[in-house]
Amino acid sequence: MTDRESDGRVARGAATRKAVLRRAVDVSSLEGLSGLTIGRLAADLEISKSGLFAHFGSKEELQLATIDTAVEIFRAEVLDVGLSVPPGARRVWQLMTAWLDYAERRVFPGGCFFAKTSSEYSDRPGRVHDTLMQYRSAFRGETTRAVRDATQLGELRADTDVDQLVFELSAFVTAALSLATPAAFDQARIAIHSRLARAATSPELLQEKAVSR
Amino acid sequence: MTDRESDGRVARGAATRKAVLRRAVDVSSLEGLSGLTIGRLAADLEISKSGLFAHFGSKEELQLATIDTAVEIFRAEVLDVGLSVPPGARRVWQLMTAWLDYAERRVFPGGCFFAKTSSEYSDRPGRVHDTLMQYRSAFRGETTRAVRDATQLGELRADTDVDQLVFELSAFVTAALSLATPAAFDQARIAIHSRLARAATSPELLQEKAVSR
Repeated sequence: MTDRESDGRVARGAATRKAVLRRAVDVSSLEGLSGLTIGRLAADLEISKSGLFAHFGSKEELQLATIDTAVEIFRAEVLDVGLSVPPGARRVWQLMTAWLDYAERRVFPGGCFFAKTSSEYSDRPGRVHDTLMQYRSAFRGETTRAVRDATQLGELRADTDVDQLVFELSAFVTAALSLATPAAFDQARIAIHSRLARAATSPELLQEKAVSR
Repeated sequence: MTDRESDGRVARGAATRKAVLRRAVDVSSLEGLSGLTIGRLAADLEISKSGLFAHFGSKEELQLATIDTAVEIFRAEVLDVGLSVPPGARRVWQLMTAWLDYAERRVFPGGCFFAKTSSEYSDRPGRVHDTLMQYRSAFRGETTRAVRDATQLGELRADTDVDQLVFELSAFVTAALSLATPAAFDQARIAIHSRLARAATSPELLQEKAVSR
C-alpha cells in the first residue's frame, strides 16, 4: 500500500466512525444507551458488523465513544454559547437559556441526550454510569463557577447561596427537558429569569425578556 | 374441585400475582420497564414461565399491570399523605414533601418509579407511554388543584400564576429525584419552602421549617 492509499483508508475509517457515532447518539437520545448494539447500528447504516467491531471492539466501547460524541456536541451548543458572554449575571442567564434552546431545537432527536441516559444509568454501576455522572458533574461545575463569578463581581447578591441557586436554576431546565412541551420551555425561561432577577443586585443586569415569542 | 379448593386456588393465584407485580415494580424502578421480561421475573421468583404467562399473557400486559401497581403505592405514599391536610398552602407543601419523602425513603429501590420510566418511554409511542403520561398528568392535575384551592382560599396571593407555580414546585422535586443525594433532597425542600413562602399571603401559613435535620 502506498502512503496515499493508506491516508485514504484512514480518512474513510475516520468518516465511517464519525457517521456511526452520530447515528449512535441520535438513537440513544430516543431509546437510551442500553439498547445500542453494534448489530443494530450496522443494519441501520448498511455497514458490515465485523467492520463496526473493528472500530469499537465491544458494546461498552461503543457506548463510551457515543457519550464522548454527545459531549462534544453539547459543549459546542451549550457551553461555548453560554461562556461567549463575559462573567456575570448575564453569563448565568445565557448558559441556562443555551441549554434550554439546545433541547428545544432537538439537536438530538430525543431531546437532551444526557437527561435520557443519566436517568437510564442512574442505578446501573459501571463505566457508562461513571462517565455520564462525571460529565454531569463537570457541567454542574461550570454552572457553579458562573454563579460564583457573578456573585464575586457583585452582580448577584453577596448572600447568594451558590449551590442552592445552581440547584434551582438547573431544576427548571431539567423539568422543561422532561416535559418537553413549548409551554414548559417558556415556564422554565420565566422561572429562571425571575429567580435570577431576585438574586441580582440591579435589575438592569438582566435586560432580556424571559420569553420573546 | 370443591368450592373451598377453588377459593384456595384463586387466593394463591392472587398472592402470586401480587408478589410478581411487586417484584416487577422494584426491578423497573432500577432498570426501567423495557427490560422487564416474563422469563426474567419467572427466574427471579422461581415460578414457571408458563404460569406467569397465564397471569399476564404478554410483556405489554405485564408492563401495564406493573404501572398500575406502582400507581397504587404512589397514591398511598404521596397523594393520600398530601391530601390528608385540608386545602390551603399547607396542603401544597405537604404534597410536595410527601413526594420527596417517598423518593428519599426509596419506597422503590431505584427511587421514583415514575421519574425513571417516564424518561425511558418519553419517545416510545404505544400503550406503555400513553399510560405513564396519563398518570403523570393526573398527578400534575392534583397538584394544580391544590395550588388553585390555596389561591381561592386566599392563602396564596390572588395574582399567583397557578401553572407557573406548579411547574416550579414540581421542578424542584424532579431535580432532587434525578440527583438523588441527601443534599439535593434538602435543596428541594428549601426551594419549595421559599417559593411557597413568597406566594403565601401570610408567613404563618407555612410554619414548618424546610429542613429539620
